[in-house]
Amino acid sequence: MRMTDIIEKKKKGLALTWEEIGFFVGGFTAGEIPDCQAAALLMAICLRGMDGRETADLTTAMAASGDTIDLSGIPGVKVDKHSTGGVGDKTSLVVCPIVASCGMPVAKMSGRGLGHTGGTADKLESIPGLKTTFSPEDFLEIVRMAGYANITQSSNIAPADKKLYALRDVTATVDSIPLIAASVMSKKLATGADTILLDVKAGSGAFMKTEEDAIALARTMVDIGDRAGRRVAALVTNMDSPLGGAVGNALEVIEAVETLRGRGPDDLTEICLELAAYMLLLGGAGSDIETCRGLASDALTSGRAFEKLCCTVQAQGGDASALADTAKLPAAPLTVPFYAQTGGFLTRIDAEACGRAALLLGAGRECAGDRIDHAAGLVLHVKPGGFVTAGSVLVTLHTSDKTRLPAAQEALQSAFSFGETPPVRREIILSVIGV
Amino acid sequence: MRMTDIIEKKKKGLALTWEEIGFFVGGFTAGEIPDCQAAALLMAICLRGMDGRETADLTTAMAASGDTIDLSGIPGVKVDKHSTGGVGDKTSLVVCPIVASCGMPVAKMSGRGLGHTGGTADKLESIPGLKTTFSPEDFLEIVRMAGYANITQSSNIAPADKKLYALRDVTATVDSIPLIAASVMSKKLATGADTILLDVKAGSGAFMKTEEDAIALARTMVDIGDRAGRRVAALVTNMDSPLGGAVGNALEVIEAVETLRGRGPDDLTEICLELAAYMLLLGGAGSDIETCRGLASDALTSGRAFEKLCCTVQAQGGDASALADTAKLPAAPLTVPFYAQTGGFLTRIDAEACGRAALLLGAGRECAGDRIDHAAGLVLHVKPGGFVTAGSVLVTLHTSDKTRLPAAQEALQSAFSFGETPPVRREIILSVIGV
Repeated sequence: MRMTDIIEKKKKGLALTWEEIGFFVGGFTAGEIPDCQAAALLMAICLRGMDGRETADLTTAMAASGDTIDLSGIPGVKVDKHSTGGVGDKTSLVVCPIVASCGMPVAKMSGRGLGHTGGTADKLESIPGLKTTFSPEDFLEIVRMAGYANITQSSNIAPADKKLYALRDVTATVDSIPLIAASVMSKKLATGADTILLDVKAGSGAFMKTEEDAIALARTMVDIGDRAGRRVAALVTNMDSPLGGAVGNALEVIEAVETLRGRGPDDLTEICLELAAYMLLLGGAGSDIETCRGLASDALTSGRAFEKLCCTVQAQGGDASALADTAKLPAAPLTVPFYAQTGGFLTRIDAEACGRAALLLGAGRECAGDRIDHAAGLVLHVKPGGFVTAGSVLVTLHTSDKTRLPAAQEALQSAFSFGETPPVRREIILSVIGV
Repeated sequence: MRMTDIIEKKKKGLALTWEEIGFFVGGFTAGEIPDCQAAALLMAICLRGMDGRETADLTTAMAASGDTIDLSGIPGVKVDKHSTGGVGDKTSLVVCPIVASCGMPVAKMSGRGLGHTGGTADKLESIPGLKTTFSPEDFLEIVRMAGYANITQSSNIAPADKKLYALRDVTATVDSIPLIAASVMSKKLATGADTILLDVKAGSGAFMKTEEDAIALARTMVDIGDRAGRRVAALVTNMDSPLGGAVGNALEVIEAVETLRGRGPDDLTEICLELAAYMLLLGGAGSDIETCRGLASDALTSGRAFEKLCCTVQAQGGDASALADTAKLPAAPLTVPFYAQTGGFLTRIDAEACGRAALLLGAGRECAGDRIDHAAGLVLHVKPGGFVTAGSVLVTLHTSDKTRLPAAQEALQSAFSFGETPPVRREIILSVIGV
């Protein structure tokens, strides 16, 4: 088999066989197929597409390129969730404890990745003492004991994806639905859950800017799951505005805790309960979505979900008392208000701009390996639909480094739009796929 | 300017600007843009195309990536020709002397390249003593004195093309008309001729298998010439069967000499006179093609064209007496007949298979740097339309290495097709573009 023949075939728009896809993924991961050939194939895939069978073959080959986690030692249906990423998306910190507190084990591995803020593991690491690096055995032990663990993904989970993603990033081949779907799902397949709920974000603060694209991506990922013998569903959710008010790491942990204690923002609470309900439904905790919504809601209002998070934090070496008293979490020495220049009904908050501001304040990584400032970020005080007067505080900026402020303030300048009437409220849950 | 933005733009099918194309060609040649990014862009160009302006910009940027030859010191209109390559294509060895003997200077640089046989420079090097490596000054001096020189291209002519071609070869991005046209024309623009006649081959023995593709390539190259201020025309010519009877290096020199002495095969004589006439027309030697055909024909029948080749061979250090007495040229120790298994009218000779056989006999290079056996190759004794009986000799194989024979004989097994009636004669000149 020759790589040039494989590239040529895809260039002509023909479907690649399982053997051809395996030859490419194996050879590329082993360093036998050079980047230039992989780049040419990736561009051909971007422009010619891949059918469902090819996409599933690519995904399973990528999942098999490194370590795979065997969760069969944990009794019950193991559920996982994945969000395609948005600004202020701390849903995992709320949803996983809800689901685990309903008796369904959640064994979650998160990549650190790049982004406006850290990933879920980074956010958890803002809790004093908490570790996210464990051996596979210790990971399974925590899930068995606490019902929920969230650790950082081992570097050898789907190494093909890591290498391909780095190449896609420099060759303008990121925005291909089969490639995005294979990237997400390869890691989910490798980390072993029986059922996976996907939260596919759509809007200005998400990778998928339109609902149509988000639905197409969701359908592709659900289809991969079907073909790989996993139960997968997806919610397509609105990411035009940041979720909740906090964007950062410790700031998001605080907001997640508030939500678990029943005092969270409405939008965050709504989406978390819905995601949890669908996870419970997929895992078979209830026979219909209404029943599962009831289970999720009970877990929240009873305090059981909050207790579950405390339990996990303790099991991962963290100081659970910092959840009851969030003043123990890292706090930024500098908190600076950002004022409204004008007044009226807030019609839109540009999620992308808020994310960029949080990154500039130190909450995220521009390059792999950058250190995160766990205390940095921002808190929005008004949500779309709210009425503000000129001079009122829209946002509080948190940072440890005052030289970071001007760029963050600049990023926020055009983030807020005002009108004379309240905006039409857009649903948070846009579509449900695969249920 | 960022390379990822340039790739993204072409991926979307948008036209790249002159600045963007220059950034890519300059950065890639300098090694600042990695192969993976260039490969992604090449694939996007293959699938999205390039308009005429972009293709011309790419060509001029590639031409400017290394040395350029200034022929202005030579009086008169300098003409050049280029063939896209076929099996048994020794036309340059006949056409250039005809044109030069009509008083039009021919300053020809040829790449060695890879192929079934060597390039024109390799063929000339089968003449004892002849050199094809000269300084630019000596090259121009030979053109000034002899009216015609044919040397090997300096390694720094269009280095962008050399690097891009090597990358296209391993990334299945060879068969793109804008990329092929830019590759050919960048070298022609860099080597400085005022007018260029292109011989674009179409058929089984050519890179362009169909007449339509050959016409599209010819139009693109003529358009590049127009935009770059050079006078360019193209003949699209038939390459279903090898041209003439000889396929090799010394063997082709012998056939070229026979043709210059008025004893060449009909097909070769016809195409050479036509190519020469169009070169003379482009260069302004006559006001119409009929006049130029007369000039070309006179040059051949008068023996002036043959004398011109002798003069050039001598100027390049070769033994011109080997042209008058071709027994002085390298001859293969082994000559082996290849017999017809069946009889009838010969309807088709597969040019590709004959070329492959010549390569296997030692006449060409499989890898850059391979040594050529100047004596190796084959001579066809029958042309399509001829009647043969089973057991008659179709081909004589020439080689210095008997271990090469079986593979060459194998390659020829299916090269000949027979029928009960003569085939319809296909024209040699299929189309004329740009006149």
